[in-house]
Amino acid sequence: MKKVAIIMGSDSDLPVVQKGVEKLKEYGVPFEVHVFSAHRTPVEAKEFSSNARANGFGAIIAAAGMAAHLAGAIAANTTLPVIGIPVKSKNFDGMDALLSTVQMPTGIPVATVAVDGAANAALLAIEILAVTDTSLAEKLDSARADGAKKVLAKDAEISAMFNN
Amino acid sequence: MKKVAIIMGSDSDLPVVQKGVEKLKEYGVPFEVHVFSAHRTPVEAKEFSSNARANGFGAIIAAAGMAAHLAGAIAANTTLPVIGIPVKSKNFDGMDALLSTVQMPTGIPVATVAVDGAANAALLAIEILAVTDTSLAEKLDSARADGAKKVLAKDAEISAMFNN
Amino acid sequence: MKKVAIIMGSDSDLPVVQKGVEKLKEYGVPFEVHVFSAHRTPVEAKEFSSNARANGFGAIIAAAGMAAHLAGAIAANTTLPVIGIPVKSKNFDGMDALLSTVQMPTGIPVATVAVDGAANAALLAIEILAVTDTSLAEKLDSARADGAKKVLAKDAEISAMFNN
Amino acid sequence: MKKVAIIMGSDSDLPVVQKGVEKLKEYGVPFEVHVFSAHRTPVEAKEFSSNARANGFGAIIAAAGMAAHLAGAIAANTTLPVIGIPVKSKNFDGMDALLSTVQMPTGIPVATVAVDGAANAALLAIEILAVTDTSLAEKLDSARADGAKKVLAKDAEISAMFNN
Amino acid sequence: MKKVAIIMGSDSDLPVVQKGVEKLKEYGVPFEVHVFSAHRTPVEAKEFSSNARANGFGAIIAAAGMAAHLAGAIAANTTLPVIGIPVKSKNFDGMDALLSTVQMPTGIPVATVAVDGAANAALLAIEILAVTDTSLAEKLDSARADGAKKVLAKDAEISAMFNN
Amino acid sequence: MKKVAIIMGSDSDLPVVQKGVEKLKEYGVPFEVHVFSAHRTPVEAKEFSSNARANGFGAIIAAAGMAAHLAGAIAANTTLPVIGIPVKSKNFDGMDALLSTVQMPTGIPVATVAVDGAANAALLAIEILAVTDTSLAEKLDSARADGAKKVLAKDAEISAMFNN
Amino acid sequence: MKKVAIIMGSDSDLPVVQKGVEKLKEYGVPFEVHVFSAHRTPVEAKEFSSNARANGFGAIIAAAGMAAHLAGAIAANTTLPVIGIPVKSKNFDGMDALLSTVQMPTGIPVATVAVDGAANAALLAIEILAVTDTSLAEKLDSARADGAKKVLAKDAEISAMFNN
Amino acid sequence: MKKVAIIMGSDSDLPVVQKGVEKLKEYGVPFEVHVFSAHRTPVEAKEFSSNARANGFGAIIAAAGMAAHLAGAIAANTTLPVIGIPVKSKNFDGMDALLSTVQMPTGIPVATVAVDGAANAALLAIEILAVTDTSLAEKLDSARADGAKKVLAKDAEISAMFNN
Repeated sequence: MKKVAIIMGSDSDLPVVQKGVEKLKEYGVPFEVHVFSAHRTPVEAKEFSSNARANGFGAIIAAAGMAAHLAGAIAANTTLPVIGIPVKSKNFDGMDALLSTVQMPTGIPVATVAVDGAANAALLAIEILAVTDTSLAEKLDSARADGAKKVLAKDAEISAMFNN
Repeated sequence: MKKVAIIMGSDSDLPVVQKGVEKLKEYGVPFEVHVFSAHRTPVEAKEFSSNARANGFGAIIAAAGMAAHLAGAIAANTTLPVIGIPVKSKNFDGMDALLSTVQMPTGIPVATVAVDGAANAALLAIEILAVTDTSLAEKLDSARADGAKKVLAKDAEISAMFNN
Repeated sequence: MKKVAIIMGSDSDLPVVQKGVEKLKEYGVPFEVHVFSAHRTPVEAKEFSSNARANGFGAIIAAAGMAAHLAGAIAANTTLPVIGIPVKSKNFDGMDALLSTVQMPTGIPVATVAVDGAANAALLAIEILAVTDTSLAEKLDSARADGAKKVLAKDAEISAMFNN
Repeated sequence: MKKVAIIMGSDSDLPVVQKGVEKLKEYGVPFEVHVFSAHRTPVEAKEFSSNARANGFGAIIAAAGMAAHLAGAIAANTTLPVIGIPVKSKNFDGMDALLSTVQMPTGIPVATVAVDGAANAALLAIEILAVTDTSLAEKLDSARADGAKKVLAKDAEISAMFNN
Repeated sequence: MKKVAIIMGSDSDLPVVQKGVEKLKEYGVPFEVHVFSAHRTPVEAKEFSSNARANGFGAIIAAAGMAAHLAGAIAANTTLPVIGIPVKSKNFDGMDALLSTVQMPTGIPVATVAVDGAANAALLAIEILAVTDTSLAEKLDSARADGAKKVLAKDAEISAMFNN
Repeated sequence: MKKVAIIMGSDSDLPVVQKGVEKLKEYGVPFEVHVFSAHRTPVEAKEFSSNARANGFGAIIAAAGMAAHLAGAIAANTTLPVIGIPVKSKNFDGMDALLSTVQMPTGIPVATVAVDGAANAALLAIEILAVTDTSLAEKLDSARADGAKKVLAKDAEISAMFNN
Repeated sequence: MKKVAIIMGSDSDLPVVQKGVEKLKEYGVPFEVHVFSAHRTPVEAKEFSSNARANGFGAIIAAAGMAAHLAGAIAANTTLPVIGIPVKSKNFDGMDALLSTVQMPTGIPVATVAVDGAANAALLAIEILAVTDTSLAEKLDSARADGAKKVLAKDAEISAMFNN
Repeated sequence: MKKVAIIMGSDSDLPVVQKGVEKLKEYGVPFEVHVFSAHRTPVEAKEFSSNARANGFGAIIAAAGMAAHLAGAIAANTTLPVIGIPVKSKNFDGMDALLSTVQMPTGIPVATVAVDGAANAALLAIEILAVTDTSLAEKLDSARADGAKKVLAKDAEISAMFNN
């Protein structure tokens, strides 16, 4: 199976990224986690991205805050799908990272998820691999069914509490 | 090859969506275009999404404005990658559509691109198909190389104009 | 008397919704509380909404955060008045939920109240039932009179503290 | 049948309000249109609102821009459902009017619709009257069905254009 | 000397308003403090404002949060200078109150100060009274001189800490 | 009678400021108009402000766009009431000018009006002079009464058009 | 004298950048203009920046819109002062470009000017060169004096028009 | 070597400014720290700025919150490079200070860094001095190399934790 890369711009993004790591483990998708900064280690960020397809990756997830250039800088060096997680930092509730990640110019797309949305970033990567992997697609479908059941269980619980 | 679906919430989104259609044609990727509204034709939107994988689709692009629920409504009914295009409408420069599209809850990801970013949405869909399609990946890479050449040509032109 | 439904997108919205429940109890209006997610249980959300009028409901209140599609998804399946409560979540102070709830396209209205405004959502539902229920209207009027008295009592208290 | 009042804060809001008027006519709902300003004619605004229920109104729609106090000022003087239309004026794309209309304090709800959303304001008023008026509810349902048919016709048209 | 009125929309605004009260005391300006709500006690708010000039007031300060209509509602009923304090409440950092207070339509001005800016609201009221009161103007000027001295003392302190 | 000064940061603000000039003329209030820039002519701006009270001014209106420091720079040099008009320029719909004008630190108030709100700025200046000028206060009250009549005339006109 | 580089992310930014070019010409500062894209020609952007100091540049100006990574990408590859011009594009009035340019992480500063502020970007570059170039500093001072004179001439003109 | 001035609008900004002081010490750049307020001590702020070049300064850093006029007020009185730090205060996450600092009119540039970005402000000042100071430029380059090493060490650490 293709691997998924999770790259964070700073190790301080690890708590956010962790939820994506867990999703990938849950689905048994092989992955690598890295710290590369678009600004502090541009050479390494570029090298990793340029070689990612050849190195067996199928999607790259990039998490960064503030003027979040990481996902775009990676996308500039690969035509693999790049998924951007805008990370909330000290100001603006992550709006700076969201706009820096999503407003990419034509030609270099970044698939942006919600602020701090690492679990969804991982799910999106899995969905991408599942396009040609039936067993992975079935796992996704069955997780959806489980998710629905959990909501319905909560509905039953709350119905019991309020309705009669 | 898997097909790509482009769904717009209203036929008034066609001028935005058109640039995505052109990209898909340019890459020879098979596609379908539809008008389904999350609010006006929820049944059809659901039916299309639920059956999309079985019907040979590999990715779904959804374009909508204002309280843009379309991409999310589709993502709720498939585990195919869903790409959301927030469409700028009369107010807020598309910020309403952007937040309605990107801020999805855990479990139901939407790969969001820039406001009115239909070309990038199509490129993202192509990148997704190219994960397991070497020839498509080569086309993407060669388009990137062409893109770089165009920028360098512009640089030469402007250099000639200003520098000496 | 017609019933009021309060639907939340996730059981984590219960603390917000609780103040609406209390208002409905205070006025003796029959109600049901449910957890349905526009994205995780779209089928149940649709079913409930489609049958709500036949099942004796007069208004539906829907509370959701982030890309808050719930109220719109319900409104898409009923012509009962649907009242949306945008719930503040981790980012943007509820602005994402507010725009996702209020900026509905023509044809599918959602009566939106303030962020986390569950008490007002309930009052609005009661006002709707009171249009043809004189005794309920009288209760509303008398609560308003009580509210005014409380403000005037506070004014007296603070006047005594500062003015002489 | 109860009447619906449409009140605008300034006659310059008439082009916005017009679409609401048309909806009410389309449904055969009796209505009155007025110009009352929360700030320039507070006495008349208050008087109209205080007497609205006694005068046979079932819902009041208020449209205003900028620091849009009109809907709130009316809601302060009646327990009828008050629907607020934030009107886009010269600045901020109507965000000033939206926040001034929707962020009402507990006790005085305003049912807020999208910026310039007069048609939906009227539909909401009709939905409110339809809670106890089966024939009106049927008209609403059949308009929804018509709306869906129009979207499906557009889908057919666009399908024919692009898909084969 | 004319009096200054400080009106708050809810007694929960008292901690904000307190700093204005202290400024007025510091300058020996006679004042009254009241709780009137534009929405809960519109009659009393109107009555107070309509009679304020006759009752010896020279300026009215109004503090309110959320859809802050109070200053505007008072200004609608008097041609005395009305000073608005937008109060930060649970959401939007007071932006809702700021826009609701400052974006008044032509004809009904509200002199708006910073979010939670009660001290400046009081100073503005004092400046207004000082236009024709030389001794008050002198107090203001001398407080400015004191303020400058405090900053210069801090500068001396910090210079001693860092510079040599 | 005290004079009112209208200062604009650039002569390009003249079309905005013009409506304030007209109001002052309408009320027969003596005034001066100047172009002083907080950044380009800080010396002259300071000199004018420092001497304004001695030179017979009762209030200063300052209009500026972008990082609108003018009103604050003037307020730093006088204890006369300073009224700030945030001017809409090329970006952000005047939000930059609004925040730069209204968010003044404690000690240096600026009475801020709506973006481009020159007429209200002038009315506020007149209200300030009218605190101790009965005849001016009467003119303001009578203009209010006229304003109300105009709204009521519009109401009559529109009532005739729609209601019967 | 050191040279100044002006780099734009796309030749469509030329009309914005032009005003910076003119300023540099006016001051006789040698310069080069280039089109390099952080995303489309990352290699060339990196190469230019890495060698800029050795190639005789003293400051680099970078202009880009949307998710404007250009200034940051250049700053990542040089320790010359990098000046960022956020360019207004189709949405958000340049707020996306402003936040993407100014919110740089610690270690990699970008000196950001106003949206579309190319003239000021050039002036800032000139100020930087003038730190050790007395004659350039004198030109800047004399331009400031000229600027002040122009404002005063406008003041005289407008004074003549309104004051007497 | 030229000195760098760090000026804060209030001593409450010291915790923010401190990180800039440390950077300047780390690089052995001579500096002075001052408290001058654009509004409370405009005379001293002006005097310091006007004489800064003559007094051996090469760059001025100004930190202020809210309607942050300090950097602009300093820039109005010198043609030295002025670096503005928007300081986050009680509201709006520093957006008020950011817009007040960065949106300067043509002719008076302010080099703006991120909200609370004092370390980057100091680095920018050092970069400016380093334009003609080879040894300082080498220190900057070597600090960049160290920064990269730290990121790579973190990458190694996190790789060891997750990848194998």
